[in-house]
Amino acid sequence: MTKENVQGASEEEQQAQSKKALKKQQKEAEKAAKKAEKQAKLASEQQEAEEDDFAMDRYGICPMVQSQQKLDRALVRVQDLTPEKAEQQIWVRARIHTSRAKGKQCFLVLRHQQFTVQALLAVGDRASKQMVKFAANLTKESIIDVEAVVKKVEQKIESCSQQDVELHVERIFVISQSEARLPLQLEDAVRPEGEGDEEGRATVNQDTRLDNRVIDLRTTTSQAIFRLQSGVCQLFRDTLINKGFVEIQTPKIISAASEGGANVFTVSYFKTSAYLAQSPQLYKQMCICADFDKVFCVGPVFRAEDSNTHRHLTEFVGLDIEMAFNYHYHEVIDSITDTMVQIFKGLRDRFQTEIQTVNKQYPSEPFKFLEPTLRLEYKEAVAMLRAAGVEMGDEEDLSTPNEKLLGRLVKEKYDTDFFVLDKYPLAVRPFYTMPDPNNAKYSNSYDMFMRGEEILSGAQRVHDAQLLTERAMHHGIDLEKIKAYIDSFRYGAPPHAGGGIGLERVTMLYLGLHNVRQTSMFPRDPKRLTP
Amino acid sequence: MTKENVQGASEEEQQAQSKKALKKQQKEAEKAAKKAEKQAKLASEQQEAEEDDFAMDRYGICPMVQSQQKLDRALVRVQDLTPEKAEQQIWVRARIHTSRAKGKQCFLVLRHQQFTVQALLAVGDRASKQMVKFAANLTKESIIDVEAVVKKVEQKIESCSQQDVELHVERIFVISQSEARLPLQLEDAVRPEGEGDEEGRATVNQDTRLDNRVIDLRTTTSQAIFRLQSGVCQLFRDTLINKGFVEIQTPKIISAASEGGANVFTVSYFKTSAYLAQSPQLYKQMCICADFDKVFCVGPVFRAEDSNTHRHLTEFVGLDIEMAFNYHYHEVIDSITDTMVQIFKGLRDRFQTEIQTVNKQYPSEPFKFLEPTLRLEYKEAVAMLRAAGVEMGDEEDLSTPNEKLLGRLVKEKYDTDFFVLDKYPLAVRPFYTMPDPNNAKYSNSYDMFMRGEEILSGAQRVHDAQLLTERAMHHGIDLEKIKAYIDSFRYGAPPHAGGGIGLERVTMLYLGLHNVRQTSMFPRDPKRLTP
Repeated sequence: MTKENVQGASEEEQQAQSKKALKKQQKEAEKAAKKAEKQAKLASEQQEAEEDDFAMDRYGICPMVQSQQKLDRALVRVQDLTPEKAEQQIWVRARIHTSRAKGKQCFLVLRHQQFTVQALLAVGDRASKQMVKFAANLTKESIIDVEAVVKKVEQKIESCSQQDVELHVERIFVISQSEARLPLQLEDAVRPEGEGDEEGRATVNQDTRLDNRVIDLRTTTSQAIFRLQSGVCQLFRDTLINKGFVEIQTPKIISAASEGGANVFTVSYFKTSAYLAQSPQLYKQMCICADFDKVFCVGPVFRAEDSNTHRHLTEFVGLDIEMAFNYHYHEVIDSITDTMVQIFKGLRDRFQTEIQTVNKQYPSEPFKFLEPTLRLEYKEAVAMLRAAGVEMGDEEDLSTPNEKLLGRLVKEKYDTDFFVLDKYPLAVRPFYTMPDPNNAKYSNSYDMFMRGEEILSGAQRVHDAQLLTERAMHHGIDLEKIKAYIDSFRYGAPPHAGGGIGLERVTMLYLGLHNVRQTSMFPRDPKRLTP
Repeated sequence: MTKENVQGASEEEQQAQSKKALKKQQKEAEKAAKKAEKQAKLASEQQEAEEDDFAMDRYGICPMVQSQQKLDRALVRVQDLTPEKAEQQIWVRARIHTSRAKGKQCFLVLRHQQFTVQALLAVGDRASKQMVKFAANLTKESIIDVEAVVKKVEQKIESCSQQDVELHVERIFVISQSEARLPLQLEDAVRPEGEGDEEGRATVNQDTRLDNRVIDLRTTTSQAIFRLQSGVCQLFRDTLINKGFVEIQTPKIISAASEGGANVFTVSYFKTSAYLAQSPQLYKQMCICADFDKVFCVGPVFRAEDSNTHRHLTEFVGLDIEMAFNYHYHEVIDSITDTMVQIFKGLRDRFQTEIQTVNKQYPSEPFKFLEPTLRLEYKEAVAMLRAAGVEMGDEEDLSTPNEKLLGRLVKEKYDTDFFVLDKYPLAVRPFYTMPDPNNAKYSNSYDMFMRGEEILSGAQRVHDAQLLTERAMHHGIDLEKIKAYIDSFRYGAPPHAGGGIGLERVTMLYLGLHNVRQTSMFPRDPKRLTP
């Protein structure tokens, strides 16, 4: 018996596998051969041209940057190419966004992140015919280093972000070549929805975008969305750290599926099974019982829900808060709403460029909020909905369409895109929710909404082991599975409340986008696990 | 057929289950009854006492804080109890750390987080005999509200953090009662190792600590460790954001096990299988190919290694960096080492109290670092080790003992606890590592060390699809499984490098601790999944 057989593969299987591997290798070899051929052709063309090419050392394809040398050469960023740099000779690294040959000239648009600049090569003293041809033949999305003189222009270049200057190229070298055939065109990917249809131009559908995310993320819209999202995280944490919160790290692999075990992913864990945490809540609460008083965490949250909607992901980023309070859970609501307001203000004041960039492709109204934040009771919301013709019971949960409608009604009445809905019916909340002391039908729990969609769910938690046991039994939860959780409250526990915010939803709704996949770099849903 | 039967449980099973549930309910009921009885006894005692108790409304057990009212009462924090507050009447919420009755007096030490203050009740005008007895009988770790007058003391109270004042208690109410029997004593849990043995006092072993983490995290040492760790994350991110980095969020559930599929956890994903990401590296690199230029992320990393050592966890927090560079990957090393130096300086300058608190239990030398950071080549390290008597080949990887030894040799020679080891042998690094352009045996890769233990592993990555394919084939990796990864480099990719840092190791080694479980709030290893 061969070693491989011991590991379980039959000889036939092995042969099939090695055939497959062989085929793959052949394919790769063919590909390599083709590429070599192409490069040889390019090289021979260049050689041919060299004889009468005075500019032959001013352009070409660089060897792969393998850290061969520490070159003492400053690279200027595209965004820094302004009239103050006029007449300076500089080096720039950028991608070829577009390229257009016109007689003895070649116009390039060079791009770095969301910034673009026009560059010009013209046959003359500094560029040969061959050099201009070389530039004109470069594939879009290739990365190049150019040496150029910055020139002020008479007429603004409307198609570029740097409208007042252009580059007169003197040297041009390829750092990384792109394949000629792109899976999607960047100009199609930033075209506003609808505009494509009208003018017979292409737009790019969502699956094509996500399948080719590396290219789709290069668009001005994507660059803006994810820079702003980075800002949301930063504002969230900075605000909380200023308020005296401590950042914690909670485990994602857990031994027991909390809350009954529905919608939870199972993990093989050595010789046993484990689960992926649906929220860090139980751990946040343990930190409160361990006297950290005010804690937050930012991390992945997993939901095995087979929901294929515009706002559900199977993995998303939770911005989680938990906080001990003195006498009333509204102390915590106030802390959370103030944090949200600081985020909204920070985005408005520091990310205006990004907001406007996204609006070009996806127009939306500026996000409105009040100070202090509007807080409505569930009862009031039900009354508003009923007045608008909705039929619903006092203790019935809000459906998604009713949440949307409520959002519109609140916007009309109070002119805000952000509000808190307080005092949910006890029946529609999890077992660890503190009942309202004055009305057994309700609870000390709340949701927060942006543009009529829920972004946070939270509550005062039951901090008494006895009451928690009763509530868990009432919900039919196996006490054995939540023993460690309940035991956490046996040795003195401060009253506390908290909540979890969905990062992708906050970004989506702040920007007025319509699909959470636009604000998740590599979204996961029941049908998508790649890239 | 009943609904339950449809779901797969036989009637017998159901009966067994309901018997079990019944038993549990009975047990709970008995418990509740006992508690009620106890409370009734307390109440009756109080009632008995009330007749001649002038202080009866000055103490007692509060109803559970259920947000019954918004009490307009400021609570002073223990840490703010200083001589400036002398003679002021204030309210404090704290835990009972210790309690000692002595004749007509009761001395309490009240604790909030890492701060403690002495409080005194004495039979007299303001406290009755019954009230002092009530205070003396309160269980340790219970949370109380006290109203007290702050008094300066003649002689410093050495056993408390607030040494210059004590509280003369006028009212005392229990907010949350602790069970009398604690699974571990806080004073045992902070006793320096060894000291317990000498004096015949108890220390607490690691499993007891981790099994009862909610209590263990209350110690001054734990409070300090995790406040400092929160600081590490904050310093890491603030430094990088100042350097123009963008924070990204990468998926943890992935469709293919990268790097050959060893040591990876499998997840059931609806009707298929998926894996937990061993690192965010492939996604960080895609972001570089998508022009984000400089990215970082902070998040969980999963390793299904059956390693039961002081420094391995199956889930830990990765601080990950990836960065495009111009000409040489040392640009990236410089960025990372500067980030580490900013972290070390920030901890030294802003967390001195925490460092000293930890040192009381776990003494260690202050952490030393150089500016700029020392960078050694692998060859030099091998030479140093050989000079110290170690036999090893040029292309052999460093064993853990040899890393430790190297750390000591470097400390002796250069007086630093932090250094970079550059230019590892190509053979011991992953397939995506860029080979050294000048010597095929080596690579553009590096590790970073703190106190002789690795905290970061990184490299220049191969950014050319063709070379990457060759390297993957050389490592025997199934190209089909990493197709999306390789394809990311086909449309122009900037040269780039990066690395991943283990948060728990940084905290452990900075503080000179000896087990990574001390710096993970809820550690996961092959044998531990709870709490």
